[in-house]
Amino acid sequence: MHLVWVIPFAGIVTILFAFYLAWDVLRRDRGNAAMQDVAGSIFEGAMAFLKRQYRTIGILAVVTAVLIGFLIGWVENSSELGLRTSVAFLVGAGCSALAGFIGMYVAVQANVRTAAAAQRSLSEAITVAMRGGAVSGFLVIALSLLGVAGIFYAYGGFTNPEIAPFLIVGFGFGASFVALFAQLGGGIYTKAADMGADLVGKVEAGIPEDDPRNAAVIADLVGDNVGDCAGRGADLFESTAAESIGAMILGVTIFNFARQQGAPNPEVWILFPLVVRAFGSVASMIGIMFVGGADENNPMKALNRGYFVSAALSAVFMVYVVQTMLDNLVFALAGLVGIATSIAFVYITQYYTSGNWRPVRQIAEASKGGPATNIVAGLAIGFETTASTALTIGSALLLSYWLGTTSGLPHGGIYATAVATMGMLMTCAYILSMDTFGPITDNAGGINEMTHAPAEARRITDSLDAVGNTTKALTKGYAIGSAALAAFLLFSAYLDKVTEVTRARGATTDFNVINIAKVEVFVGALLGTMLVFLFTSLSIQAVQKAASAIIDEVRRQFREDPGIMAGTSRPDYARAVDITTKAALREMVAPGLLAVGMPVAVGLILRAEATAGFLMVGTISGIMLATVLNNGGGAWDNAKKFIEAGHMVIDGQPVPKKGAIHSAAVVGDTVGDPFKDTAGPSLHVLVKLLSTVTLVLAPLFV
Amino acid sequence: MHLVWVIPFAGIVTILFAFYLAWDVLRRDRGNAAMQDVAGSIFEGAMAFLKRQYRTIGILAVVTAVLIGFLIGWVENSSELGLRTSVAFLVGAGCSALAGFIGMYVAVQANVRTAAAAQRSLSEAITVAMRGGAVSGFLVIALSLLGVAGIFYAYGGFTNPEIAPFLIVGFGFGASFVALFAQLGGGIYTKAADMGADLVGKVEAGIPEDDPRNAAVIADLVGDNVGDCAGRGADLFESTAAESIGAMILGVTIFNFARQQGAPNPEVWILFPLVVRAFGSVASMIGIMFVGGADENNPMKALNRGYFVSAALSAVFMVYVVQTMLDNLVFALAGLVGIATSIAFVYITQYYTSGNWRPVRQIAEASKGGPATNIVAGLAIGFETTASTALTIGSALLLSYWLGTTSGLPHGGIYATAVATMGMLMTCAYILSMDTFGPITDNAGGINEMTHAPAEARRITDSLDAVGNTTKALTKGYAIGSAALAAFLLFSAYLDKVTEVTRARGATTDFNVINIAKVEVFVGALLGTMLVFLFTSLSIQAVQKAASAIIDEVRRQFREDPGIMAGTSRPDYARAVDITTKAALREMVAPGLLAVGMPVAVGLILRAEATAGFLMVGTISGIMLATVLNNGGGAWDNAKKFIEAGHMVIDGQPVPKKGAIHSAAVVGDTVGDPFKDTAGPSLHVLVKLLSTVTLVLAPLFV
Repeated sequence: MHLVWVIPFAGIVTILFAFYLAWDVLRRDRGNAAMQDVAGSIFEGAMAFLKRQYRTIGILAVVTAVLIGFLIGWVENSSELGLRTSVAFLVGAGCSALAGFIGMYVAVQANVRTAAAAQRSLSEAITVAMRGGAVSGFLVIALSLLGVAGIFYAYGGFTNPEIAPFLIVGFGFGASFVALFAQLGGGIYTKAADMGADLVGKVEAGIPEDDPRNAAVIADLVGDNVGDCAGRGADLFESTAAESIGAMILGVTIFNFARQQGAPNPEVWILFPLVVRAFGSVASMIGIMFVGGADENNPMKALNRGYFVSAALSAVFMVYVVQTMLDNLVFALAGLVGIATSIAFVYITQYYTSGNWRPVRQIAEASKGGPATNIVAGLAIGFETTASTALTIGSALLLSYWLGTTSGLPHGGIYATAVATMGMLMTCAYILSMDTFGPITDNAGGINEMTHAPAEARRITDSLDAVGNTTKALTKGYAIGSAALAAFLLFSAYLDKVTEVTRARGATTDFNVINIAKVEVFVGALLGTMLVFLFTSLSIQAVQKAASAIIDEVRRQFREDPGIMAGTSRPDYARAVDITTKAALREMVAPGLLAVGMPVAVGLILRAEATAGFLMVGTISGIMLATVLNNGGGAWDNAKKFIEAGHMVIDGQPVPKKGAIHSAAVVGDTVGDPFKDTAGPSLHVLVKLLSTVTLVLAPLFV
Repeated sequence: MHLVWVIPFAGIVTILFAFYLAWDVLRRDRGNAAMQDVAGSIFEGAMAFLKRQYRTIGILAVVTAVLIGFLIGWVENSSELGLRTSVAFLVGAGCSALAGFIGMYVAVQANVRTAAAAQRSLSEAITVAMRGGAVSGFLVIALSLLGVAGIFYAYGGFTNPEIAPFLIVGFGFGASFVALFAQLGGGIYTKAADMGADLVGKVEAGIPEDDPRNAAVIADLVGDNVGDCAGRGADLFESTAAESIGAMILGVTIFNFARQQGAPNPEVWILFPLVVRAFGSVASMIGIMFVGGADENNPMKALNRGYFVSAALSAVFMVYVVQTMLDNLVFALAGLVGIATSIAFVYITQYYTSGNWRPVRQIAEASKGGPATNIVAGLAIGFETTASTALTIGSALLLSYWLGTTSGLPHGGIYATAVATMGMLMTCAYILSMDTFGPITDNAGGINEMTHAPAEARRITDSLDAVGNTTKALTKGYAIGSAALAAFLLFSAYLDKVTEVTRARGATTDFNVINIAKVEVFVGALLGTMLVFLFTSLSIQAVQKAASAIIDEVRRQFREDPGIMAGTSRPDYARAVDITTKAALREMVAPGLLAVGMPVAVGLILRAEATAGFLMVGTISGIMLATVLNNGGGAWDNAKKFIEAGHMVIDGQPVPKKGAIHSAAVVGDTVGDPFKDTAGPSLHVLVKLLSTVTLVLAPLFV
């Protein structure tokens, strides 16, 4: 069968490539003893968090696996089906956890090496950080590709490719289950530590950021890893897995049609999503090799160059794969729409969150009126960003759908939106590498700061840190864009799944009408929006509660040991890390269970059609609100940086740091932190979890 | 025909009652010359604003009327129909404008009389303020009742009661068109003036609120009237009108069925909404008479007593009217569900925005960490409030719908939700009276403050002002609750309207399936949510832009005339009022046109079914976001008041005013202002405008 061999081949090559990068990073210089000491503390704290977090998630996952296995087995009257669902769930959960673990493990090794490299050259530092990030990015993608393909074949993909996609939905649910808790726990941890460190350190004690006298400083550095690496790794693992499975389900209809027509290899329609992603991984690998040789004045250029190489190669591969497998170029055009959408999101995010354009400047300008006007301006910008997001997604959906309908194939329109989504996901490995670049450079900066490295090295890590902020924002824009584009595909997969369930029970009609004019569907839709808002509230409150635990601890250490402030005794970093860990894990449970429990409750009470309304409108609201939170938060952050960089000038003088205007901007930045790093990213995962949980539990709702 | 005579009878009695109250208020003492001087400035400013605002709205309305008349005439190939739609639109617009004007006219007369009464007793002050508010509340309700009934009969209600409801939708559109601009313009004015006065006065110059040296102080007092009286008056006029029309449209199906069955008076199903509202007006009148004899310690009790009398009487009337007209008590139960929902919303709002419970205290507590934690806490509470709102509305809808289906009548379920909505609207006159009570007491406080009235009188107006803040919050809760409950009914009316249009063109099937699984419906839904978010952004930004115009002016006056600060010369209040007026009117146009234009664009491009998705999901998002904005804003406001009242104690001492904690709470209050008084209330109107614009233009979208 054409090109299917590329899936395992590219998967294995990707893993080897990641190992090569890991070897290249790990063999590099780890800096002096003080640096290694700080890095060691970060490593220990991160691993301790992950260990405890995975224990909590593990318990929840096993309970959930048993429960869904039992329920599916009971409803479908097939203990084998129940067992298979449980196993798929656990494999998905395990892969997702592994993806998070690997991402973080390498990142906390790369940070100190980046710090050391920065003492030699910018170019070397950028290479180390990007390669460290890439280890994580590529392993996540390889795991997702091989995991989905593996379970597909294990569940009968060779013999019954039209049935297997429905059996592996548990894999997607397991992946998003872990991703939700990983992102929530990590997100709460990172921002609680950040707020705690800032409020006691910068505000109360008047010491700078990353000052070693602050007991929460290590917790803060650990937080960058557990939130951005582990959380985002699990998030994008889950995205790629769930969206591939959804696309494969949509391929079944065309498979059946093609088989009827006597086409030679009808299964290409089911396997196409995996093949095109395999090619995407290759495109991203080549892109990574183009990073390096950084421009001193604009290190972002080096990363952008690699990205554009990846995107361009992805476009070429897309056309080639469609031509070879599907032999219908309208789908290639749909794929190009997806790739163009990913580029559009990169630009939209930059426009709204970079100091070069109107939005961030407007927020900086509003800081003149004090914190209140800064906040209002930032929220207004956050809300405004939904317009370009919605218009881009709406156009991409309508265009790709329309292209698909011209193929004349059944389900051709929906399938084309799936191809567009796959096009968008092709560069995922590259994007994820850029994302992990963020916490690595952030940590490298912290290590150099804490160990009083030479000014030049600190300048280099600072400039990389700024780039890291941009890449983190880009990844969020990309993640939300792909979630939005995928929403329709996942939703359609749910309809197909319900159709499959009802047909197995003897129904003769398809389940393809979700009539929002029915009162229970309307109420389902209302509850979907409510879930998104309530979840946001709970996750923000979780950060505040966890932060207050850390604040108390740092204050206590300052109070009980005056030597800390004097710099003669070393604060108890480990205790602060421990308290943050416990608080974050405690606080992640309530929003997490709400997210898993509410779709189940709606499904059981209001049934399958209302659940579809719940899912769909919840997804729309979630995507829009996440856009507000991510971009608003990013814009506040960069408005502060814009002022700090001296770009804001009044009466010929740059606005001073620590003055009233800068302080107002700091307030906005602090408000934006839990938005962009906890609630926003958790919402991405939430909307995908809604899809996977309803896909798996559909038999219960019919 | 049973009870229909009550409509004109109650309408006229209501008007006479309002005239009696107006006479009673106007004959009272206007205080000393200084007070009359201030009141005169407020009056002039308010009238000048209204005059100019109505000129702008008038031009927009006439252009719109001509446009829709032409389009409808062209599409339906009937210039008579086009003309009728235009006329209905203009009558609705005129009534809405008149309602706003009357409400404000009496309010700006009652303020100085309340201030004078406060120099005698709390009890008299509360009576004057409440009666002043009631003039507005009752006239608005009478206008809406007589307006809808009048146009219904003018358009053939006597002879063809099953056709007339479809012909009068233009009335609802006209009403919401004016309401949108009135609420937007007034909301922008009031908060721009408030922010401008506070930022330059309190923050920069260090002078207290309502200090006569502040050039923006009159503009600020004017703002309370143009936002809360004129804006909310137009808003609730439009709610009652549009929802009555929607309910009448839904009654047509049962009318046809009843006529087929040979029922004696089938038109009761169409006229029931108006009759029950007429009784509601009577219930509210009786309730108003129970206000008075205020408890010194808790003036809110006097208002609550009257409200519960109104609600209890409404329940009795509801049962009586249903029994007499519909002869089917399940609808009475549905009506009681509506009345219970209105009470639930009163409690929910109080819980979330009063200092007696957890939410406000949580925000006050968070102020210890500075402005950022205060903001985050307030937003989290705002998001949290959507849960009780959605659950209440969801339950009310499902319950009333289910009750209706047990009647066995066609459309019985939907009709029952309409009955529930009418139940909720029965106490509307009372609620609106309480709302207008707010700006009257606020102004009375300002007048007493500016004229250095005796301390005891100022204490009384301050305590009434606090009550007014609660009643304003309650009204918003009520307005959003009724909008949410009405959403499903208005949406169903849209489906009936499209059915009517397509049947007239020869179609044989009903338009009653809105399949959100279609890509264009999904995109419509996405765009609906986007409209809500973008509109919020634009209206918040409008406040900021208008505020900066005022800030510049107040600063200029302080700078150019040092006598103002010294208290020797009088600032140029009129100029500040003028600048605020111009800025607010300029800034209201963009969000207003977006709100009107986008549904038209979606309808023309994506057609009727996608428009339904747009309407429905936009409404859900709008209701949820307005809840966040209103309640978040109210909670911030009262968290500040909670601290100012000395309820927050640290180490045995109340937290001081002007200290860091109080300042943090002031930031939250300032952020909340444009949320709760501009964006939130404008969103109420927006969601209803979406319904009416699509109802009217449905023929273009088919």
